[in-house]
Amino acid sequence: MRTETQRKTERDEAEELTLIEGRNAVTEALRADRTIDRIYLLEGAAERGLMRIAEEAGKRQIPVRVVKKERLDRMSPTGHHQGVIAQTAAFTYGTVEEMLAAAEKAGEPPFLILLDGIEDPHNLGAILRSANLAGAHGVIIPKNRAVGLTPAAVKASAGAVNYTPVARVTNLTAAMEELKKKGLWFVCAAMDGEPYYRKDLRGPIGLVIGNEGSGVSRLVREACDFTVSVPMKGDIDSLNASVAAGILAFEILRQRSVKQ
Amino acid sequence: MRTETQRKTERDEAEELTLIEGRNAVTEALRADRTIDRIYLLEGAAERGLMRIAEEAGKRQIPVRVVKKERLDRMSPTGHHQGVIAQTAAFTYGTVEEMLAAAEKAGEPPFLILLDGIEDPHNLGAILRSANLAGAHGVIIPKNRAVGLTPAAVKASAGAVNYTPVARVTNLTAAMEELKKKGLWFVCAAMDGEPYYRKDLRGPIGLVIGNEGSGVSRLVREACDFTVSVPMKGDIDSLNASVAAGILAFEILRQRSVKQ
Repeated sequence: MRTETQRKTERDEAEELTLIEGRNAVTEALRADRTIDRIYLLEGAAERGLMRIAEEAGKRQIPVRVVKKERLDRMSPTGHHQGVIAQTAAFTYGTVEEMLAAAEKAGEPPFLILLDGIEDPHNLGAILRSANLAGAHGVIIPKNRAVGLTPAAVKASAGAVNYTPVARVTNLTAAMEELKKKGLWFVCAAMDGEPYYRKDLRGPIGLVIGNEGSGVSRLVREACDFTVSVPMKGDIDSLNASVAAGILAFEILRQRSVKQ
Repeated sequence: MRTETQRKTERDEAEELTLIEGRNAVTEALRADRTIDRIYLLEGAAERGLMRIAEEAGKRQIPVRVVKKERLDRMSPTGHHQGVIAQTAAFTYGTVEEMLAAAEKAGEPPFLILLDGIEDPHNLGAILRSANLAGAHGVIIPKNRAVGLTPAAVKASAGAVNYTPVARVTNLTAAMEELKKKGLWFVCAAMDGEPYYRKDLRGPIGLVIGNEGSGVSRLVREACDFTVSVPMKGDIDSLNASVAAGILAFEILRQRSVKQ
């Protein structure tokens, strides 16, 4: 029998992205051995990063086409191609199951990051980057009212999307309830919680980050086991969502590394 | 006699920004009593945030003009006006002296953030936001090869630019040498430093964050007193610059708050 999570998470062959652009993103895609159909390089560019991309493409038998700037500009989804665009197989969303399997394989308690309605692709990309580097096993996003793996998000992830799976679920709270049965605790980032550094964040954990404007929604918040805050001074309302996610994700990594 | 820092920092009546757009940014500008010449609101918009902006503008005798979407789209520097654009006096860069004076007035050891060549306006904005909320007294940026207070940076700062001064200096290392004479220690964020949570970061401090691609430049790094790193796992190269800045800035705030 399939679990609720399995049903909600269904693998989705996303058609949202077929182009990767920018030196870092293309280099990472090569390094991660992603399926690349062709690489477009800027004519006359002698920049070292671009040369290395051409060399790596050659090693992997990936066709390289040298094109004029106008051509790259026209192809470029975000307008910031930095002289290189790779045409790839579409990014595939992952599943919650593969995240749990990755944790088990690594002999680590699961560490997932759940985004309750992040809308800005820069934030999604930066959070993926932090998730990868903080040792999270995956990022779960809702299907509706949230940004997916758009070209801008993939670029901002600086290659993290090649390593850290992103699963899309129809219902975040239903996914949380399923994961609770597998032993996960959920911590919600909000203004009125206990200071994050006073809380024991080791063990199987799901870190929940809310929408840029409205924070964590009521139902998701009620499904969390506890709430932590980043104590702040200052005059404005709130931290950037990806900065808040980074602070909390690296606190989890710190507690996992430092305390035994 | 004027000091080196004073000479390098010269107050600069920036002409980089005369428009503030987006609900949060305009609301913050109103709340901070910035000089606003006129507010442009979207015709037919009944959104609550926009209504409140109109009300606040009325209280302050700021003229409001209701315009069609096409007009806002044309005016909009970033394309994301969310129905409101405020035309303001240009943002003024601050001075290092006023940052030190603010610290003294607050009875706190100075806490400055120095950006060694941040190029992305989203990163500059997010760092300003973190600087404000982590209690930093100001942010110092170089005049050349770095993004300034552009509309995109101001918008990403979510109002922080109204409270936290940004100074532009010609030479970052010269500014650091001057500040060292006033008792500041400089900590550089780099991959090979000691874990940030093992280092005493209290006292008068300048936190140095490097360029998105190349990190902290050699001369600036040599001018630092010590180096800290954010210990990481994962597969990709480095954290987003604004996330790294946020983690370190809030560690400084944490140490200042928690330990005595």
